Amino acid sequence: MESLTLLSTHDIAKHNSFGDCWLVVEGDVWDVTGFAPQHPGGASLILKHAGRDATKAYAEYHASGLIEDTLPSSCLKGKLDRSTIDETWTRDRSSPTASSSHPIQTLPDGLKPPLHSIINSYDFEEIAARTAPKKAYTFYSTAATDCWTRDMNESMYKRIWFRPRILHDVSRLDTSTTILGNKVKVPTFICPTGLAKMIHPEAEKALARAAKATGIIEILSTSASHPVEDIVAEAPDHPFFFQLYVNRDRKKSEELLAKVNRLGLKAVFVTVDAAGRGKRESDERLVVDEPVINPVTGERILPDKKGGGLTRMRGSYLDESLSWKDLAWIRSLTTLPIVLKGITTAADARLAMQYGVDGILLSNHGGRNLDYSPPAILVLLEMHKLCPEIFERMEVYVDGGIRRGGDVIKALCLGATAVGIGRTFLYALNYGSEGAEHLVELLKDEMESVMKLIGITNLSECHPGLVNTLDVDHLVPATDWHPYAQWRPKPRL
Amino acid sequence: MESLTLLSTHDIAKHNSFGDCWLVVEGDVWDVTGFAPQHPGGASLILKHAGRDATKAYAEYHASGLIEDTLPSSCLKGKLDRSTIDETWTRDRSSPTASSSHPIQTLPDGLKPPLHSIINSYDFEEIAARTAPKKAYTFYSTAATDCWTRDMNESMYKRIWFRPRILHDVSRLDTSTTILGNKVKVPTFICPTGLAKMIHPEAEKALARAAKATGIIEILSTSASHPVEDIVAEAPDHPFFFQLYVNRDRKKSEELLAKVNRLGLKAVFVTVDAAGRGKRESDERLVVDEPVINPVTGERILPDKKGGGLTRMRGSYLDESLSWKDLAWIRSLTTLPIVLKGITTAADARLAMQYGVDGILLSNHGGRNLDYSPPAILVLLEMHKLCPEIFERMEVYVDGGIRRGGDVIKALCLGATAVGIGRTFLYALNYGSEGAEHLVELLKDEMESVMKLIGITNLSECHPGLVNTLDVDHLVPATDWHPYAQWRPKPRL
Amino acid sequence: MESLTLLSTHDIAKHNSFGDCWLVVEGDVWDVTGFAPQHPGGASLILKHAGRDATKAYAEYHASGLIEDTLPSSCLKGKLDRSTIDETWTRDRSSPTASSSHPIQTLPDGLKPPLHSIINSYDFEEIAARTAPKKAYTFYSTAATDCWTRDMNESMYKRIWFRPRILHDVSRLDTSTTILGNKVKVPTFICPTGLAKMIHPEAEKALARAAKATGIIEILSTSASHPVEDIVAEAPDHPFFFQLYVNRDRKKSEELLAKVNRLGLKAVFVTVDAAGRGKRESDERLVVDEPVINPVTGERILPDKKGGGLTRMRGSYLDESLSWKDLAWIRSLTTLPIVLKGITTAADARLAMQYGVDGILLSNHGGRNLDYSPPAILVLLEMHKLCPEIFERMEVYVDGGIRRGGDVIKALCLGATAVGIGRTFLYALNYGSEGAEHLVELLKDEMESVMKLIGITNLSECHPGLVNTLDVDHLVPATDWHPYAQWRPKPRL
Amino acid sequence: MESLTLLSTHDIAKHNSFGDCWLVVEGDVWDVTGFAPQHPGGASLILKHAGRDATKAYAEYHASGLIEDTLPSSCLKGKLDRSTIDETWTRDRSSPTASSSHPIQTLPDGLKPPLHSIINSYDFEEIAARTAPKKAYTFYSTAATDCWTRDMNESMYKRIWFRPRILHDVSRLDTSTTILGNKVKVPTFICPTGLAKMIHPEAEKALARAAKATGIIEILSTSASHPVEDIVAEAPDHPFFFQLYVNRDRKKSEELLAKVNRLGLKAVFVTVDAAGRGKRESDERLVVDEPVINPVTGERILPDKKGGGLTRMRGSYLDESLSWKDLAWIRSLTTLPIVLKGITTAADARLAMQYGVDGILLSNHGGRNLDYSPPAILVLLEMHKLCPEIFERMEVYVDGGIRRGGDVIKALCLGATAVGIGRTFLYALNYGSEGAEHLVELLKDEMESVMKLIGITNLSECHPGLVNTLDVDHLVPATDWHPYAQWRPKPRL
Repeated sequence: MESLTLLSTHDIAKHNSFGDCWLVVEGDVWDVTGFAPQHPGGASLILKHAGRDATKAYAEYHASGLIEDTLPSSCLKGKLDRSTIDETWTRDRSSPTASSSHPIQTLPDGLKPPLHSIINSYDFEEIAARTAPKKAYTFYSTAATDCWTRDMNESMYKRIWFRPRILHDVSRLDTSTTILGNKVKVPTFICPTGLAKMIHPEAEKALARAAKATGIIEILSTSASHPVEDIVAEAPDHPFFFQLYVNRDRKKSEELLAKVNRLGLKAVFVTVDAAGRGKRESDERLVVDEPVINPVTGERILPDKKGGGLTRMRGSYLDESLSWKDLAWIRSLTTLPIVLKGITTAADARLAMQYGVDGILLSNHGGRNLDYSPPAILVLLEMHKLCPEIFERMEVYVDGGIRRGGDVIKALCLGATAVGIGRTFLYALNYGSEGAEHLVELLKDEMESVMKLIGITNLSECHPGLVNTLDVDHLVPATDWHPYAQWRPKPRL
Repeated sequence: MESLTLLSTHDIAKHNSFGDCWLVVEGDVWDVTGFAPQHPGGASLILKHAGRDATKAYAEYHASGLIEDTLPSSCLKGKLDRSTIDETWTRDRSSPTASSSHPIQTLPDGLKPPLHSIINSYDFEEIAARTAPKKAYTFYSTAATDCWTRDMNESMYKRIWFRPRILHDVSRLDTSTTILGNKVKVPTFICPTGLAKMIHPEAEKALARAAKATGIIEILSTSASHPVEDIVAEAPDHPFFFQLYVNRDRKKSEELLAKVNRLGLKAVFVTVDAAGRGKRESDERLVVDEPVINPVTGERILPDKKGGGLTRMRGSYLDESLSWKDLAWIRSLTTLPIVLKGITTAADARLAMQYGVDGILLSNHGGRNLDYSPPAILVLLEMHKLCPEIFERMEVYVDGGIRRGGDVIKALCLGATAVGIGRTFLYALNYGSEGAEHLVELLKDEMESVMKLIGITNLSECHPGLVNTLDVDHLVPATDWHPYAQWRPKPRL
Repeated sequence: MESLTLLSTHDIAKHNSFGDCWLVVEGDVWDVTGFAPQHPGGASLILKHAGRDATKAYAEYHASGLIEDTLPSSCLKGKLDRSTIDETWTRDRSSPTASSSHPIQTLPDGLKPPLHSIINSYDFEEIAARTAPKKAYTFYSTAATDCWTRDMNESMYKRIWFRPRILHDVSRLDTSTTILGNKVKVPTFICPTGLAKMIHPEAEKALARAAKATGIIEILSTSASHPVEDIVAEAPDHPFFFQLYVNRDRKKSEELLAKVNRLGLKAVFVTVDAAGRGKRESDERLVVDEPVINPVTGERILPDKKGGGLTRMRGSYLDESLSWKDLAWIRSLTTLPIVLKGITTAADARLAMQYGVDGILLSNHGGRNLDYSPPAILVLLEMHKLCPEIFERMEVYVDGGIRRGGDVIKALCLGATAVGIGRTFLYALNYGSEGAEHLVELLKDEMESVMKLIGITNLSECHPGLVNTLDVDHLVPATDWHPYAQWRPKPRL
Repeated sequence: MESLTLLSTHDIAKHNSFGDCWLVVEGDVWDVTGFAPQHPGGASLILKHAGRDATKAYAEYHASGLIEDTLPSSCLKGKLDRSTIDETWTRDRSSPTASSSHPIQTLPDGLKPPLHSIINSYDFEEIAARTAPKKAYTFYSTAATDCWTRDMNESMYKRIWFRPRILHDVSRLDTSTTILGNKVKVPTFICPTGLAKMIHPEAEKALARAAKATGIIEILSTSASHPVEDIVAEAPDHPFFFQLYVNRDRKKSEELLAKVNRLGLKAVFVTVDAAGRGKRESDERLVVDEPVINPVTGERILPDKKGGGLTRMRGSYLDESLSWKDLAWIRSLTTLPIVLKGITTAADARLAMQYGVDGILLSNHGGRNLDYSPPAILVLLEMHKLCPEIFERMEVYVDGGIRRGGDVIKALCLGATAVGIGRTFLYALNYGSEGAEHLVELLKDEMESVMKLIGITNLSECHPGLVNTLDVDHLVPATDWHPYAQWRPKPRL
C-alpha cells in the first residue's frame, strides 16, 4: 500500500460535490461519486463529508474494512498526506453541541445544503455567508460604522421575556390579520431592499411569488432590480406596497407614483431616514469589479472617487431637502395610504400623526444609515410612554432584528400591527422563491408555537401584559427632551 | 531503537481502557495493561493517561529510565510518530487551573471516570456529554430555539447572593422536611422526564431505588420508559408522585389516574405548560436512526414529516384544549393532592389557588417549551410582590437551573418548600442507581456546608433575609400588567 | 517540475514589498516584482498578497494556467514547501466578515497600506500597531495600571444613542464653529502629546501644516519634539494654543509663557491632572535602548532606577505643589485666555469658574495618569446635574475616547464647544502631514453624515434632546459628596 | 549543512536555563550557555528566549550571520526539525500588546524572572502559577464551589471610580496610620493563611522580617507553618497580631491564647466565618502525595475518605458550636484587643459593636468558605446605609480582592482603617522575604501615585466624596431584611 500516491488535503478538498466526491476513511482517499446515490444511509450523509475526512462518522456506523469490501479498488485514489493537515482540515464541522446556538451543519464552501435542512432564519444567513457571492453578502449584511445599531436591533428582542398564561384552549390558531385593510395570513411583510438581483436573478419577482403563496405583502423598492410592472405581474390579484425614495428631480418621483397608482399597488411607504448615506465599512472595503445598473431608473451606478462601496455608489439621486411640508405634495400625487418609513422617536411619530399619514414604520434602516439610532422595539416602548394615543389612531409597524416568530409576537404584544423583514428575505432568496416561502413557513410555525404557549389563539389577543420588558425599560426615554439637561445651546455664528 | 514501528496518535489513542491501555513516555509507546493494577500510585493515575502521552506526568514523579527497568521489553510497542501529532493529541487534559470552573479530568472518549471522582453536578453533565449516546445527550440537553431560558435558569441563581449570619451554634444539622405531608431527607425531588431509557436501561427503576436510598421523592412521567407499576415495585413503601399529561383521548387519562390511585401514589402533578411543542433545534438536527416506543402507551413514536427530532415525534397525544375548567374533571378522578406544574406568572399562581389546587410547581419546563419564559426563581420573587399570601396557603416548588446545594437553599429562603431536578438526574443515571444516589449525597453535602456558613441548622430557619436578590430585582414585575403601557388591543377580525 | 527548489514559508514571506514581491499560486512561487505595476487589476491587488499565498484570490478572477502564460519562466522561483506551513501563513487576511468590526486588511509587517485605503480612525491605530516602532506604539497606546479609564473613555461614547429627527432640509451643512473666538472648520483640536517624533521626524511640524490645511487648531505641548517657534513657522497666520506644564523651577515657566506671548499663540491650556506620574505598565516593561532628548528643555531624559519606561523618565520637572492660588501667578504672565486641562468633577469645574478661567477641558489625560478617573463625557453629564450654569459662562471641551465623527456630535449635543483628539493624531502622523489631514477629513465626513441623519445643518443646532444617555445616567453623580455615606473621617496623627 | 542533527522542539525546549541555554536562530540550534553572560545586551535578553526560537528578536538587533561569526562552531547543536513545531512552540511570549492587561513576560516553566522585573501584584500570581509547586498554587488560588465570590472580590474594586480633586499641593505625602494604636507605615496588613511553607520553607518567618522592614503588621495564623514564638523572634520589638480558630477542645485554645499573651502580641483576630468547611474543588481534585503536619498543634493531617483535598484534611478541630455568648469566654482569656474576622452583614457588625469587640474585619475568607457571600467592599457600603455610627466607635478593616494601591485608597475612602492581603503575600513569598518587601513597596508606590492624583497628602484626608460607587450601589442592601418579601417561614417539624 506504500506505493499509493500521497494526496494533500488541499487537493482532496476540491472533490467536494455531488458530481465529484472524495472521502478520506482511515487514511485512504476514496472516490465515492458513483456510490453516493446508492448509499443505504442516503447520499446526504456522504455529501456532508465530501472532500473531507469521514473516518469518525464512518466508524460510528460501519465496521473497519467494509469500504474495501464495497467499493472497487479503482475508487481508491491514494493516501492522505498527513503533513498537509492544517487547521482548516481538522476543524470538525459535524459535532453536535449543547451550546445555546445550534448552527446548521454546513457543506464545503459553495455548496448549499438542501432547503428542508434549514430550520430557522439564522441558517439562511449562515448559508448565504458561505455560498452567496462575496459582494452580495457583504452588501446585505453590512451596516453603518460600528454596526452597533444593527446588532442591538437583534439583541433587544432577546432581552424581552414572555409572561405566559396557562390553561387556555389553544387547539385552534389563527395568525392572520390585516394591514391597511389588506388581509394577510402572517403579520409580516417583505421590506424593500436594493440589489436583490445580486443573490438571485429573479430577485423581487421570486419574492412576489413567495408573498402570494404564503399570503404576505411585499414592499417594492424604488431601486428594485426589476421594473415594478414585471414584479407585480408575477402575482396577479395580490396586494403590493411601494417604497418611495423621493428624487431630487421631483418629476421622476411624480412619474413613479403615477405608475404605482396605475398598477394598483395598495400603499406608499415614504423613506424618511435616508437624508445622509450610511458609512458601511465592510462594503467600502470591497473592490467593485463591475458596474451596477438601476433597473428602475435605468441609470448606470458608477463608483465615486472613494473607489469602492456599493453604498457610496448609490443614492445620489436622493433628495436631502425633503421635509415635513413636502408630505402635502406627495399626498397630492396619490390617493393611496401613505406610511412614513424610518421613524425613531415618539416626537416624530406624533408629528406624523398630526400630518395625517396613515401609518408609520418604526425603523432604523437595519442599522445601515445612522449607527447608534435606537432599535424599533424601544421606540415602540417610547411611544407607550409619550404618545400612546397613536396606537388608536393609525397602524404602527416595526422592522429590524426580527429573527424568530417569537420576536414577531413580542412586537405585536407591544402594539405593532405587523413587522417587516428585509435582510433575511435576501438570504432566503439564495434558494429562490422556494427559499422565501420556506422562511415564512418557519416563522409562522414559530409564531404558532409561541401563541399556544403564551395562551392565545389569534393576534387580537396580543397585549403588553404578555411580555416583560423590565430588562430594557431603563433605556426608554420618558420625555422628548433629555431627562435632566437644562442647558439649551445658543446659536453659533 | 530506530527499527521500532512508528505508531500514529490515532492508533495509540484506541488503546485507552483498563483492558487495553497504552501510554507514551518520552516518545516510546508502552503497553501497560498488565502493569496498571500493580502501579504503586494506583491504576487510576495511569488510566488517566490511557491512549495518550504521559511524559509530563511521568516526569513529575519518576526518574527517566524507571519505566525501562520496570516493564519487560515486550511491552514496548513502538515509537510515537510525531508527524501525526494534532491538536486533539496535544490538548492537555490534566493541568489544574485557577479559573472559576474546575472541570473534571475526563478520560478518552467513551470511558467514564470512576464515580468517586465526581464531585459536583457539572461533572455528571460533562461526562454524559462525552460518554452517553449522542442522541441521548442531545435530547436531554437541548432546549427551545435560542436556549435563552435554559441558560437563564442557571445564571439567575448565580446572581443571588447570601447574607450569612455568624456565631450561631451549627454543630447539629437537619436537611429533612415534608412535601405534601411526606417526609423527605433532602428538600429535592426528581422531576419527570421522557426517554430516560436512552442513557440507562433501568431508567426510572434505577432512579426509584436511589430515591428510596436517599429519602427523596421521584415524580413518574406519563411518558416514563417503564410501566408505573414496575417502577414503584422497585421501592416498596416509599412515596411516589405522578406527572400527568392530559390526553386528547380523555379516557386514557382516566384509566391512567385510576391506576395511579390504585398503586398508592401520593400526588398528581398536572403539566400545564405543554400546550405547544417546543422547537428544540439541536434535537431537530439529529438524524433519527431507530423508532422509539412509548412504554406507557405502547405506541410506536414515528418521525413526523420534518424528518427528525425526538421532540417533534412525541407529544401528539397532548390535549391542547386543556383549560381551567378541566381541573374539576381531574379533581373528580382522584382524591390525591393536585399540583399544577408549569406556572410562570403570579397571576396564574393566584388563579391556581382560587381553583383550589394543593400546590404549584413554578417551572418553565427546563426552557424546553417556550424560550424567553421566566426562570422560576424570578417567578418566586414576583409572587412576593404580587401574591405573598399564597405562601401561607399552599406549597410552592421550583425547578430549572438548580446545580448546587446552595441553589436549593436560596430557593427555600425565598419561600419554596422543595426544588425539582430533572436533567442532572438523567446525567447521573449514566452511572445507574449509584449515580443518582451520589448526586443526592453531593447536593446534601453542599447544602449542609451552606447551612453552617449562613448560620442555620434546619430548613425552617430559611428566610428571605438570608439572601440578597438586588442584582435581579429590577427584572421582577410588580404588576400583572405591563408597568407603563396603557394601550389595550382592539380585537381584529 | 519536481526538480524545483522547495521554498519555506519563512523565506517566501520575506519578499513582501513593491520592490521585491513574490506570490504563491497553486503551489508555485512566482516573482511578480516586475509584473505588478502592469497588472490590469492594479498593483495594489497584488501587493495585498505579497510574500503570501494568493491562490484563492487568483482563482476568483483568473483561469488556472493564466499565470504561466503571462510570466516568463524565469519568474518561477520554486515550489512552496508545504511542511513549513504554519498558522501565521494560513491565517487569511482578506476574508470579509459581517462582524461589528471590519478591520482594515493589513499588509505584511512593516508595510503601510496606501493612505486612501484607510477609512476610519481605528485603521490608523491598527496600522501604527503593526508598522510604527514598537517603542512608539507602546508609549502612545499605554495607560495607567489596569487601563480601565482608557477603555471606558471609548466605551462610554458607544453607550450613548442618538434620537434622530426626520424630514428637515439638510441639503446644506456647516461643521464650522469658533473656539475662544478663533474660527475653525471642524469642532476638533489636536491635543498636546509627548514624544511625537518617535513616529515621524517632523512631529508637531507636520501636524501644524495639517491643522492649517483642514482649519483646526493644534495645541503645542510643553514637551513638544520641536521648538515652539519652529512649529508655528510651519503655519503662518494660523492660530495655535499652548499647553503648559508648570515647572518646579517657576522661572522656566515664566520664560516659556513669555515666548508664547511673543509668538502670538491664542490660549494657554494649563495641565492640572499631572501631579503624580501615571504607572503605565506596558511602557515600564519595555527596555529602553536609547536616551531621549526633550527638545524644548534640551534636557536628556534618563532612565530612573526602575530601569525602564518612558513615562518614568519624564516629568521630573513637574511642580507637584501647584494649587489654585497659583492661577493668579499664571494670570499675571499672560493676557491670553487660560483653560484648565484635566478637570474630572463638577466641583472643580465650579471652582475653575470662580477662579475666572476662560475655559475648561474635561479630561483624564487619556487614562494615562489616574486609572479609574471618570470619562469626560460623564463629567459633562455631571455638570448638567450639578452646575449647568457653567455652560453659559465659559467654553467647555472634552477629550478622551473620541474615535468617530458621531462621538464629536454627541459631545457637542451635551454642551461641549469642541473636542480634543490626541493618540489618534499620533497614529495618523505615521503618514506624516497627509495622514493627519486625512484623519480630519474622515471625521468631518462622519460628522456630516450624522448631522444629516439626526436632522441638523449646523453645530448650533446640537442639543441634549438629540441624544439618549439613559444607559450611562446611573453612573453620573448627582451630588458632590457620596450619595449616602454620612461618615466623615477623623484626622489621623 | 544537511548532515546536521535534526532536533525536535521538545528536545530544544529542555535547554532553557542559565546553566543550559539553547536558542534557535534562523533554523539553527545554538548552545549559548557560555556566551550568555558576555552578551553585550545582557544575559536577560538571551534568557528570555532560552529553549525557544529567537529568530525574530535576533533579527531586530543583529545582521544575519553575526551569530556564526561570534560563536565557535562547536556551539551549533543541529537544525530545528520543523515537523515538530506545535502551538506551544509558536506561541510568542514576548510581543507587547496594547490590551488592558500587560502580563509579565514569563520565562520557560520553572524559571522565575528576576524580582526587579515584577511591577505589580498580578505578576507575583502569574509567576507563582508557573513556578510554585502545583499543589501549593492550587491550594492558595482555589476558592469555594463556583469561585464567584473570589472573583467578585476583585471585580467590585474595579467598578468603583475615583472623583479626583485638582490643584492641591501634594509635594509631601504620608501613607502611615495606626491600627489599634500600633503605628504602621502603610495601611495594609498580612492576613493569616495556612500552609505557607508549601511555597517557601521560611514561610511566616520570612513574612515577619518583611513586615518589620516595611513597617506593616503580620497576623499569625492558628495553623501557621512555624511555631508562633519562632516567628515573632524574627522581628523583635515589632508588633504582631494573632488569628484564633477556636478549637473543639477549648483547653487548647486557652493554652494558645496564654502563649499569645505571654509573647506580647498586640491583638487577637477571632475567625467567625469558618463554621463549615468550604468546598474548594480545584483542591479536591488534586491527589495528595504526602501527609502534612500542623506545626502549631503537632497533629498529622490525614486525608479524609473523599480521598483528596488539603481543605478537607484540615479544620476538623474547628468548633462549630461557637456562638456570640462565647465571646465572654475569650474576653476572659486575654486583655488584648479582640477583632472579629469574617463579618459580612451590617446586622452582625452592629451585634459585634454591642458585644464590645474592638474591631471588625469585613471578610469572606477570600471566597474560600461560602461562595456567593458578599465582597467586603460592599459590606462597607451596607454599613454606611445601615449602621454608619460604627465607624465612629471602632476600627473596621476589609480584605479580599485587593490587588492595587488604588484599591487600598478606595477602601480607606469608604471608612476602612486598613486592609488585609492574604494570597498575594503567599505568591510574593515565592521570592522569600525580599518578595514580600517588594510587594509592599509596589503597593505603597501605587498608593502614593493615587493620593497625588486625587489631591490628598495623608490618609486622614480620605473620604467618601473621593469615590464614585454608583456602578455597584444597586447591589447594596438598604435593610437588614429582604427589601420586599413579607413572607416569614413557619417552623417545620
